[in-house]
Amino acid sequence: MAIHQHLLHLVELCVRKGIRQAVISPGSRSAPLTLALARHPEITTRVVADERSAGFIAVGIAQQIRQPVIVVCTSGSAVYNLAPAVAEAYFQEIPLLVLTADRPKEWTHQLDGQTIYQTDIFGKHVKQSFELPADYVHPDARWFAERVSNEAINLARTEPRGPVHINLPLREPLYPTADETFEFGPVRVIEQLSATPALSPETWHRLQDEWESAERKLIAVGQGPHDPALLAILKKISEEWRIPVVGDVISNLPRNGEFITQPDVFLNVSDTKIREERRPDLLITCGQSFISKQFKLFLRSYPPRQHWQIQPHTRLADPFQSLTRLIPYEPTAFFEKLFSDIDYQRFVSNDDETDSDNSFQEKWQTLDRKATRLVKRFLIEETVFHEWAVVQRLLDALPTDSQLHVANSMPVRYVNLSGLDENQRVEVFANRGTSGIDGCLSTAVGAALTTLKTVTALIGDVAFFYDRNALWNNLVPNNLRVIVLNNHGGNIFRIIDGPSRQPELDAYFETSQPLSAENTAKDAGMIYRKVTSYSELKAALPDFFTESDRPKLLEIETDRRTNAEQFSRYKHWVQEFNSN
Amino acid sequence: MAIHQHLLHLVELCVRKGIRQAVISPGSRSAPLTLALARHPEITTRVVADERSAGFIAVGIAQQIRQPVIVVCTSGSAVYNLAPAVAEAYFQEIPLLVLTADRPKEWTHQLDGQTIYQTDIFGKHVKQSFELPADYVHPDARWFAERVSNEAINLARTEPRGPVHINLPLREPLYPTADETFEFGPVRVIEQLSATPALSPETWHRLQDEWESAERKLIAVGQGPHDPALLAILKKISEEWRIPVVGDVISNLPRNGEFITQPDVFLNVSDTKIREERRPDLLITCGQSFISKQFKLFLRSYPPRQHWQIQPHTRLADPFQSLTRLIPYEPTAFFEKLFSDIDYQRFVSNDDETDSDNSFQEKWQTLDRKATRLVKRFLIEETVFHEWAVVQRLLDALPTDSQLHVANSMPVRYVNLSGLDENQRVEVFANRGTSGIDGCLSTAVGAALTTLKTVTALIGDVAFFYDRNALWNNLVPNNLRVIVLNNHGGNIFRIIDGPSRQPELDAYFETSQPLSAENTAKDAGMIYRKVTSYSELKAALPDFFTESDRPKLLEIETDRRTNAEQFSRYKHWVQEFNSN
Repeated sequence: MAIHQHLLHLVELCVRKGIRQAVISPGSRSAPLTLALARHPEITTRVVADERSAGFIAVGIAQQIRQPVIVVCTSGSAVYNLAPAVAEAYFQEIPLLVLTADRPKEWTHQLDGQTIYQTDIFGKHVKQSFELPADYVHPDARWFAERVSNEAINLARTEPRGPVHINLPLREPLYPTADETFEFGPVRVIEQLSATPALSPETWHRLQDEWESAERKLIAVGQGPHDPALLAILKKISEEWRIPVVGDVISNLPRNGEFITQPDVFLNVSDTKIREERRPDLLITCGQSFISKQFKLFLRSYPPRQHWQIQPHTRLADPFQSLTRLIPYEPTAFFEKLFSDIDYQRFVSNDDETDSDNSFQEKWQTLDRKATRLVKRFLIEETVFHEWAVVQRLLDALPTDSQLHVANSMPVRYVNLSGLDENQRVEVFANRGTSGIDGCLSTAVGAALTTLKTVTALIGDVAFFYDRNALWNNLVPNNLRVIVLNNHGGNIFRIIDGPSRQPELDAYFETSQPLSAENTAKDAGMIYRKVTSYSELKAALPDFFTESDRPKLLEIETDRRTNAEQFSRYKHWVQEFNSN
Repeated sequence: MAIHQHLLHLVELCVRKGIRQAVISPGSRSAPLTLALARHPEITTRVVADERSAGFIAVGIAQQIRQPVIVVCTSGSAVYNLAPAVAEAYFQEIPLLVLTADRPKEWTHQLDGQTIYQTDIFGKHVKQSFELPADYVHPDARWFAERVSNEAINLARTEPRGPVHINLPLREPLYPTADETFEFGPVRVIEQLSATPALSPETWHRLQDEWESAERKLIAVGQGPHDPALLAILKKISEEWRIPVVGDVISNLPRNGEFITQPDVFLNVSDTKIREERRPDLLITCGQSFISKQFKLFLRSYPPRQHWQIQPHTRLADPFQSLTRLIPYEPTAFFEKLFSDIDYQRFVSNDDETDSDNSFQEKWQTLDRKATRLVKRFLIEETVFHEWAVVQRLLDALPTDSQLHVANSMPVRYVNLSGLDENQRVEVFANRGTSGIDGCLSTAVGAALTTLKTVTALIGDVAFFYDRNALWNNLVPNNLRVIVLNNHGGNIFRIIDGPSRQPELDAYFETSQPLSAENTAKDAGMIYRKVTSYSELKAALPDFFTESDRPKLLEIETDRRTNAEQFSRYKHWVQEFNSN
């Protein structure tokens, strides 16, 4: 028996439940846990010193494998450094098993180092927070640890997925003696079967009736991973039933002539008659957040009569202020069943018409095509070197079948306005759970460690330097491509309306920073190149994306005043576009 | 009236209550607050992009001025990035006024960006967490905001001092129009008088009697700022009454022939008779934490019959597991009154003897002098280039009347073992509230921004890179001197016993990192120099500490195996020393 046998059991249980990945930050209090993970043959461990980055690297891994990833840190403020990633995981519904070593509770606030109040420290940003005892003399303590370990792992994987916390007070000795053997098993696995939510036939009939009676239907998809099955059924619905299907770039709905991807461009209309024409009777949504501000504002002021949200759990969010029905169902299965049921119904009733109001979809699609052309023309006609046009050229050059991690805050907006074509086959990720800049690069590193695809991180200078410890570890993989859009400040504040009008813009909002990414790239052993013009960019791109035995960083320096001027020129175009 | 008039009142109230310093991280939700601070003529603002660093810079400023410093961040995960500094401030009892902008509560968890659960987010790591309303239509809301603002500021300054949080949900519009005038006043100031805890004459008599009846008395001082009045009375007590006064280097008790500063060296004795001889009957402590592990272990296994803790508040910590009496009194005033009362008593009773057992102090002082000689000899005879000997040479070279900020985890131990002489007049600071490595450099930057003295930050490579965003701002002042002890990893794990015996030492604990501080220094516009030998160090030091129009960074590269070997050689010396 090891001294901290309950930790060996916890690790064994993780393995038995399919968890294979751990991100560990070094520490002494956490040593028993680190050793248990390091010595288990089935666990892949990765060591990252800065817990803030470690947490987001774990988010990046879990985002890829869609299974819980273990995060380990030592006691004290280390735990708080994990909190930004835990919050992101919570709101983005990414499963993590956060294991924080602690001193035995007796030592909290006793002036004795690296001890803070760790019980429930993540507040509402974990699905649940457990705490194991420090002592295992009584058999009930061992039963408790076993039960809690089972419950915590099960919970991380139950919809809505998310981070689960176990706080682990540990007594000294923390390190095993040389003759201590590590026996991981046996452990009792408490299996939790996964049940699919089912609706009664009566409920389905009611939904079908309401579906059929709604004239103007709109489907909108929030943030979510690339999901071929969902895309297939939504495309079918769009093609065969002529229902407009809308999604931001983070929904992973690509531009393919069917899906509506540019609502931000064409919904900024003030004419109430036109807006009224675009209002759906029935809105069906699935997925998580939306970026498009115009889409949100439009629906909030022109709410549909009915709004169904389809999701595999019952957490209630109402971003359009229009929700009337929560349908706890897996979205793909919902749309497939809806389609086949109605299809069958129409077949038996010999009603082979498509939906009554084709013109509704036509309106949305026509506007979307026009908006796409507007953006393309605006960007391609460009001769001035500015950030959004640079982003468009980067998007055009992305390798097919690759991943794009877009950082907050301007890059994700640019990419959303530009969109991505279906034939590019690019999966898009962004930390839109909390929309912070604090871990965008680390998340991309986590992804690159997990997928064999090329992972491109598109990031502004402030987010890049904020999270540059993402590159301070011995892990940064060769398939990572970092593109730093360096305008030497928080350019978004010059681009959006409010702050750009304040005399404090420079000093308090945009806050210029002089750094180039060169030194950080070189410190991380990355191939570095910098460009400042379209011709340099064009020359650099092919080489940048070729395979390499080192990761690469491309820095693109633009002028923040020019970026703001050009964006304001775009806004004029859009205004004109929407007033015609 | 400004749209967010209650924020102007809050800022005006801060000013009226003597708060003059604010550290601001850029953001849009926090813009009304940023503008209120920026536009108030009495407030000095500093802008720092990375909230983690911003929080610790504020800690560094507040540590110097001993008054609350305002910290401002925007909504979302930004708030969690402040948490490590908030925890450090809480346990180190440093006053902060943490103002977090929030969205109106309706928008929490509504998939709408930069919104997390900010209510009570810092848990037990703030003295109190307040939340203001988003709407000010009802006059009670305005009254509430005024009252809460008063209470929060008062609370941050009430003993024990510490961080106080106000969460500020703010509605759009966030930015003022051009014609909006900022009128800060008038505000109602609710003054809180500061009352000094007083003990009744009977209580004093009882304390005096117990003091007189205790044969062997020991005074021990925990972490605290340099305090000439406290030092004066303690020196008097040591000299005139022959009472040993013990303190770590972070207590700011200097080595002066009176104070006992090396307990860690000479208390590591196994002989129970010797240990019993050193046990006090009455232990009196004040201040915060102790570093010396041997001192703590000694007192825990040989507890005094009585242990009084003198502090201006009633929070109960018992790090020696021996506390019998909490005396809520300001320590300097306590010792001064005790001294004068007993002095008078002895005068009237014609008892002009000193305390009965002079030999007790003599034992401690003799051991301390021997220990000091041992350490000096160990370090000065050194020819091998290793970290602790380097630290000793650095300490010897520190400018008089300067500040030393010692980082966790090895540097603070080295400095504590070496000690500082009184005539050096060096004030010592260290983040021993949570003993984290996450903000040591930022805290030093905050101090350097505030004092005119030279501020030397002594920091290991892991802590340096962890917190290098301390140097990523436009503030780094010329009086800052950073010394990076670069052994390319977490060398402490090789130096302490447990991990050094594990096969996982390299990969999971020490975790080698290849970076040099050069690029980071240059990025920050600092004068950089690197040394790898005693002769280079000797040549570099005089120039390093001279005044300059740029801050400087000195990198000292050592070999981590050599450092560990030499430390282990020291441990043998100590063992021998203590067995004689």
